[in-house]
Amino acid sequence: LSEKCENESDWSVEVSDFAKSTCNPVRKLIEQMKIEPNPNYQMIALSIGDPTVFSEIGKPQSVINAVQACINDKKFDGYTPSYGTEAARQAVAKYYSRPDNLIYKFTDILLTNGCSQAIDLCITVLANRGDNIVIPKPGFSIYKTLAGTLGINVKYYSLLEEFNWEVDLEELESLIDERTKAIIVNNPSNPCGSVYSREHLLDIIDLAERYKLPIIADEVYGDMVFPGNEFYYMSELTQRVPILSCNALSKRFILPGWRFGWIAIHDPKNYLARVRAGFNDLTTRILGPNSLAQAAVVEILEKTPQSYFDGVMQILSINAEIVYERVKKLPGLIPRKPSGAMYMMVGLDLKCFPDIPTDLEFVQMLIREKSVFCLPANIFECPNYIRIVITMKKEKIIEACERIEEFVLAHYKPCEKK
Amino acid sequence: LSEKCENESDWSVEVSDFAKSTCNPVRKLIEQMKIEPNPNYQMIALSIGDPTVFSEIGKPQSVINAVQACINDKKFDGYTPSYGTEAARQAVAKYYSRPDNLIYKFTDILLTNGCSQAIDLCITVLANRGDNIVIPKPGFSIYKTLAGTLGINVKYYSLLEEFNWEVDLEELESLIDERTKAIIVNNPSNPCGSVYSREHLLDIIDLAERYKLPIIADEVYGDMVFPGNEFYYMSELTQRVPILSCNALSKRFILPGWRFGWIAIHDPKNYLARVRAGFNDLTTRILGPNSLAQAAVVEILEKTPQSYFDGVMQILSINAEIVYERVKKLPGLIPRKPSGAMYMMVGLDLKCFPDIPTDLEFVQMLIREKSVFCLPANIFECPNYIRIVITMKKEKIIEACERIEEFVLAHYKPCEKK
Ligand SMILES: Cc1ncc(COP(=O)(O)O)c(C=O)c1O
Ligand SMILES: Cc1ncc(COP(=O)(O)O)c(C=O)c1O
Repeated sequence: LSEKCENESDWSVEVSDFAKSTCNPVRKLIEQMKIEPNPNYQMIALSIGDPTVFSEIGKPQSVINAVQACINDKKFDGYTPSYGTEAARQAVAKYYSRPDNLIYKFTDILLTNGCSQAIDLCITVLANRGDNIVIPKPGFSIYKTLAGTLGINVKYYSLLEEFNWEVDLEELESLIDERTKAIIVNNPSNPCGSVYSREHLLDIIDLAERYKLPIIADEVYGDMVFPGNEFYYMSELTQRVPILSCNALSKRFILPGWRFGWIAIHDPKNYLARVRAGFNDLTTRILGPNSLAQAAVVEILEKTPQSYFDGVMQILSINAEIVYERVKKLPGLIPRKPSGAMYMMVGLDLKCFPDIPTDLEFVQMLIREKSVFCLPANIFECPNYIRIVITMKKEKIIEACERIEEFVLAHYKPCEKK
Repeated sequence: LSEKCENESDWSVEVSDFAKSTCNPVRKLIEQMKIEPNPNYQMIALSIGDPTVFSEIGKPQSVINAVQACINDKKFDGYTPSYGTEAARQAVAKYYSRPDNLIYKFTDILLTNGCSQAIDLCITVLANRGDNIVIPKPGFSIYKTLAGTLGINVKYYSLLEEFNWEVDLEELESLIDERTKAIIVNNPSNPCGSVYSREHLLDIIDLAERYKLPIIADEVYGDMVFPGNEFYYMSELTQRVPILSCNALSKRFILPGWRFGWIAIHDPKNYLARVRAGFNDLTTRILGPNSLAQAAVVEILEKTPQSYFDGVMQILSINAEIVYERVKKLPGLIPRKPSGAMYMMVGLDLKCFPDIPTDLEFVQMLIREKSVFCLPANIFECPNYIRIVITMKKEKIIEACERIEEFVLAHYKPCEKK
């Protein structure tokens, strides 16, 4: 064996299939984008779903107080149990229970490194190599990224634009086969900004029940709905179907960098006994979130006033309105009004832009000419759309809209056929 | 398909092979230990390698200052690049370079969730299902835990107790086959407390070079050696063999709960180009450590004085001496003097303890009778030893030794044959 390798070039070390089958198109685009913005304009990034960027609002004051109260005490530097401290899990259980119809015990909560690891653990605990999970399209790319590494397949069910991005239940049903292990539902939705009604959620739950499939509910935008809309946790709506609700401090508490998330296990009929044991084993691989964050979360969840969240949603809803009204007037762009989360999808009528063949091209030219960075929605499996993040300051948002307007007017050609 | 599942019992959801093949025996023992301690004694846990427990020393003051300086600024709450901020990577690169013979650039550093995720990424990027990695015995159980999930096999090479736990190089060589993808070296060692000489490390590097295998160097106890010993990073000692050095703030900075670690890529000949790309993809799955910790690490690495580390090692070395001298006198126990890290291995001459068949039994009875919790070293693939953590306060350590003495004298029967 040793002789086989005498040639120095043999050193070139191969990379595993795990790595090769891992791709996160959002991160790849954002971190490796090579397009030069126009030096005459300051860059406005409406790309990454990071609420700390540009917004006039930062984290709640409770976060600062809580960290200052914990930082001196070395007991908060120690290893925590793999699935988190009892105090932090208790705080999450209490905060995310709904007095009338959803009571979590602390043992139902597992702390994770952000919502990403919550979803990773759910997929990993349920599916084998060659199994599949069904996921939304348009949808956030992380599900495929996570499943891909492990050789778990994804099948896309469509969200119907004309029905406020509701799930195409018939199509979803047709995708389910013997190797389907879970349904992922993302509500409110990234990238659509849609918020599902109670009735629609019940229809999805009903389907899951008929096929006896657990639901992984990606509810990282839970409660982030604009005034006049109502959000339901899927766990509130069933006393039978097991729901793994994935969530985090990332969006609602404006702490995406903290990598603090959790899985809330809703399983009234105790169908998931083996899955709970599996979670326990899997969390011992790299352990959960930062211990200081775990210590602080108790006070953060207790002390953050409702008015803080109301303020954030007020601003997001005004921003959505501004972008919607402005973009609506632009030829060739068809904005879709969101009801929650922090994104707006904008359809591109590309036959009216003869020099722009794809959404990716649209986005790249917009950067090059106007230094405005949106994401091409083909990375959300939804070509011919762009996704605009609406968390930035009002002045920025208006400036971005103005630049988009100039860009569109420069490239738009009415009635042209491609 | 739907009808197949009419029976409610079919709901019982199966757990994946990924979860089934994941086992962390240390965490399992510590978190699920059901043995009741003796209510007449306060529990002394010499089990988990958590330097925050019992020690008179806490984290450096620089940590508190750095966090207080960062917590108000919301720019430290945002998503960081998947492999960490440039500032934090720069700080690690600078701190862990050695002016004479090891210069890291920030692009050589990837930030991770503790040393555990550093090792996880290294194994995942290099090995496929069915491949193998060679790992030390006795050795820390995390390597097998991490590899097991992915169906990567482990092969154990022996550390030779009579040669200060040096690697049995002949055996190591005999284990290497076509599917071997990496050699893991842990120096200083958990559980042995051994510190390898320059010469021995060069011998290991030489072997790796002959087989063209990259080395994963678990150096989480790097620089934690008792006065009179010297520690070398493997990366200092070769200009050819690629070394993936895994490290963390966990032990030396006494911040295990922070989950802040890194991989330092040493690859002077650029053999690892594909591996670097693979790391980039893999880090986009759940992202790196907490952003506040990333912000703080710059000041932490710059401002922590050498005297702080010297103080810690002074205490650990005194503790080691105390335990060694006391245990040496006990019949049937054979302590092995450590040179670094924070553990001591103690051999058990079990034929002198007729009512104690195994190291696990020894440990359980010691808890039940004397409320002292050590780890049975069979979980480190080294039966008939126990591992004692030596980070606690001197009074505690002496009390623990006294209780162990009582326990041993109560159970020891000279000359008995089993
Ligand atoms: C729908 C959705 N799920 C999960 C995540 C990941 O959340 P986290 O940053 O907490 O890992 C995001 C982040 O953008 C998201 O939009
Ligand atoms: C040898 C060794 N490697 C890795 C680790 C894991 O370190 P971390 O807590 O930074 O993940 C430990 C922890 O005890 C260890 O002893």
